[in-house]
Amino acid sequence: MALAATAAVESLARPAGPRSNLTPTALHELIWSMEICPETGHDLTGVLRDLGETVWNHGVVPSDPACVAHLHPPTLVPAVVTELAIAASNQSMDSWDQSPSGTEVELHLMNWLAALIGLPGSGSGIMTSGGTASNVLAMTLARSSAAHRLGIDVLKTGLPDEASSWRLVCSDQAHFSVQRAAAQLGLGRDAVVVVASESSGVMSLNALDATLATLSDQGLIPIAFIATAGTTDLGVIDPLDEIGRRAREHRAWFHVDAAVAGAFLLSSRLRPTLHGIDRADSVTIDFHKLWWQPFNASALVVRDVQQFDLLRVKSNYLDRGDEIDGMINLVGRSLDTSRRFDAIKVVATLRTLGRQSMASMLEHLVDLASFAGSRIAENPRLELIAPPASVMCVFGVRGASTDDLRQIQQRLLTRGEMVLGRTEINGRSALKFTFMNPLATHDDVDRLIDVVTREIDG
Amino acid sequence: MALAATAAVESLARPAGPRSNLTPTALHELIWSMEICPETGHDLTGVLRDLGETVWNHGVVPSDPACVAHLHPPTLVPAVVTELAIAASNQSMDSWDQSPSGTEVELHLMNWLAALIGLPGSGSGIMTSGGTASNVLAMTLARSSAAHRLGIDVLKTGLPDEASSWRLVCSDQAHFSVQRAAAQLGLGRDAVVVVASESSGVMSLNALDATLATLSDQGLIPIAFIATAGTTDLGVIDPLDEIGRRAREHRAWFHVDAAVAGAFLLSSRLRPTLHGIDRADSVTIDFHKLWWQPFNASALVVRDVQQFDLLRVKSNYLDRGDEIDGMINLVGRSLDTSRRFDAIKVVATLRTLGRQSMASMLEHLVDLASFAGSRIAENPRLELIAPPASVMCVFGVRGASTDDLRQIQQRLLTRGEMVLGRTEINGRSALKFTFMNPLATHDDVDRLIDVVTREIDG
Repeated sequence: MALAATAAVESLARPAGPRSNLTPTALHELIWSMEICPETGHDLTGVLRDLGETVWNHGVVPSDPACVAHLHPPTLVPAVVTELAIAASNQSMDSWDQSPSGTEVELHLMNWLAALIGLPGSGSGIMTSGGTASNVLAMTLARSSAAHRLGIDVLKTGLPDEASSWRLVCSDQAHFSVQRAAAQLGLGRDAVVVVASESSGVMSLNALDATLATLSDQGLIPIAFIATAGTTDLGVIDPLDEIGRRAREHRAWFHVDAAVAGAFLLSSRLRPTLHGIDRADSVTIDFHKLWWQPFNASALVVRDVQQFDLLRVKSNYLDRGDEIDGMINLVGRSLDTSRRFDAIKVVATLRTLGRQSMASMLEHLVDLASFAGSRIAENPRLELIAPPASVMCVFGVRGASTDDLRQIQQRLLTRGEMVLGRTEINGRSALKFTFMNPLATHDDVDRLIDVVTREIDG
Repeated sequence: MALAATAAVESLARPAGPRSNLTPTALHELIWSMEICPETGHDLTGVLRDLGETVWNHGVVPSDPACVAHLHPPTLVPAVVTELAIAASNQSMDSWDQSPSGTEVELHLMNWLAALIGLPGSGSGIMTSGGTASNVLAMTLARSSAAHRLGIDVLKTGLPDEASSWRLVCSDQAHFSVQRAAAQLGLGRDAVVVVASESSGVMSLNALDATLATLSDQGLIPIAFIATAGTTDLGVIDPLDEIGRRAREHRAWFHVDAAVAGAFLLSSRLRPTLHGIDRADSVTIDFHKLWWQPFNASALVVRDVQQFDLLRVKSNYLDRGDEIDGMINLVGRSLDTSRRFDAIKVVATLRTLGRQSMASMLEHLVDLASFAGSRIAENPRLELIAPPASVMCVFGVRGASTDDLRQIQQRLLTRGEMVLGRTEINGRSALKFTFMNPLATHDDVDRLIDVVTREIDG
């Protein structure tokens, strides 16, 4: 197996650059000419080599300094090699008898994370496949909690009539998975009440209070407040403490989506920006963002582990309730059944790098975004949309239309020169750098800005 | 990286047996004494060695012939080493600019799978994290489809009043994720109408017709029929053709949960048992069961790719709708956002082994279950519950109570001698072998039966 693993590593060798310059059409033709399932097999080394040439050569390279579109990290070696052990040992996290040590490792990691957030001793959590899944799980618990207060088991009997007045409150910069959760849960996207943000991108407390007053007038009930710690585009952190206080006043669930800025917990310098996160009923943390883990690795941490009881369903073959003491079946905390042992790669990473190195890497990226912000602010062609608050830097191009920006981004992508972000802030088109590579430098930033400004004249 | 990968492989070396004999309490103490995040890091080789001793030594070993509790496979080398490439390259399947070649590979694999099922050219699919997620996605589409027929976008405006009469129809042997989907979607578990099964375990068509008549009398509307191809315990396949016909008569969604028996499509001998699967609107296929892939690797295949349009939500930063022709963002087909490039390990496996080897391995396991069935039938202490239909063999112990069976299973598990299945069929407790290891032999089966019968005498 070690030999085959080496061949797999070698298959990844490829020309420099953030991606190849094949057009979508040419790439489509190349990949679809590949045989999926021959009658008889081929030599593994040959297959891996061919996949290297056909597939890996034409992927994107998150470790390239010009790959700056998304919160899409290059991955750390301890995590990558541990994936090999995860796949070879293939523990399944749904029941103790499919993952005895894995169950304990995941619980240990989750309780450590809950303590890091500052939650009480009752805090724990569960690993999920991503931030969206974590947010959906949080909203599932919030919905059950609201129904429970009416004496209703919503998972059993479905949404009660009262549910038509339930609302989820978040800012206009919250991740679209809040809408997805509302849609999935039967409340509908229209049940999400969107509060305006300040120009910096944080939720406006004045707007929140006005929204809450309007809801009250209309007889609508906010069952969950969702604050974002690290918005997708501007990377800003909502006023967690103030939002959490209002959630408590309304006896509503307080969820903090810290998919992006959760890693700030590791840095004594950045951590104060998360003030109030310890008020949360639930927190989303994505290890596959600024903890540099391979997909998937997300967590939903809850204030009180008993909140998962709202979710548990007995199963004849998996979670019978008559297990030996200490044999915990994690299926009772999860919306999934079979589940990878992703917790171990996080542990391998943290133990190999240690907290200080993780914090330094993160602080470097925050400084890099800040440096990019200052360079853009002094560039006459560009316009900084808001001062960078984490690892993103969002900017406009003076005199350029939405279509101009689209063309700049798409030309750079198609030529394989840069994977640049493009988004919209308060109805205004913008470009975006997202710095995820801890080895990137000030020179890289200057080069990126140079490439973009040259492309404007394109 | 190749060196570190070798260290990761070596960390998996461990004593023989399906699991260690540590008690849950001792294991808890061992794992929780482990440091999660030191201030400064440690040498990677040392960390991997320690995780080997602390964690991997005390997992379960799906490749051990005595690990027979669940549909929990040992994994194939081409897939395991490809996981290393998946983690190192870290493509993300939500958008084309995070996975250009990966997007095309996943689409190619999904269309191949749709064709293998026998769906029309419009068939395609999406990879998900597991069978539960695939079933939830299928029921999400079924719900949207039912609402759409009323002119309602349920994802936007939430469940309409009519939803209180919507029912999901499946057999009493269907996987509990159907209940979970109903719960998640706001319909509630009570919206699942459970049809009795024959003694063989397949859905009774007489019972189905009686159920449909009752629903009609009550003014309730079956919006989805869920047939199971490979039930969790007995491994039987519902009469797909007949159920599909009734679904069409009721203009309802027809979903086939082929998480277990989907692999039968690869075998010309076993494939006829899936007759009628090509009537499906959607099919769940778990590559991480009888295709021996590491978790996660599941798929939801749909009859008509346009059905995913019911799901799509535009996003400013990910899926804007103004992309260059051919740049497909798979986020529009998925309930997830960031998503691993699991498709590539399936492709690496199929190309290395070829269809014939995959089919032979599968047929061997089906024969092994059948052999176990005949041995159990002739054993005076044991009682075969139903003739094995795929890779499971479910049996009772004459004169033994539910508690006796629990003790047998738990003693074998605690001593690390066997990871045995235990379940309940029509209210009756039973033990279960699930054969997942293609290298297991008749001798292994005889030894398993011998261990269980010796344990009866305790």
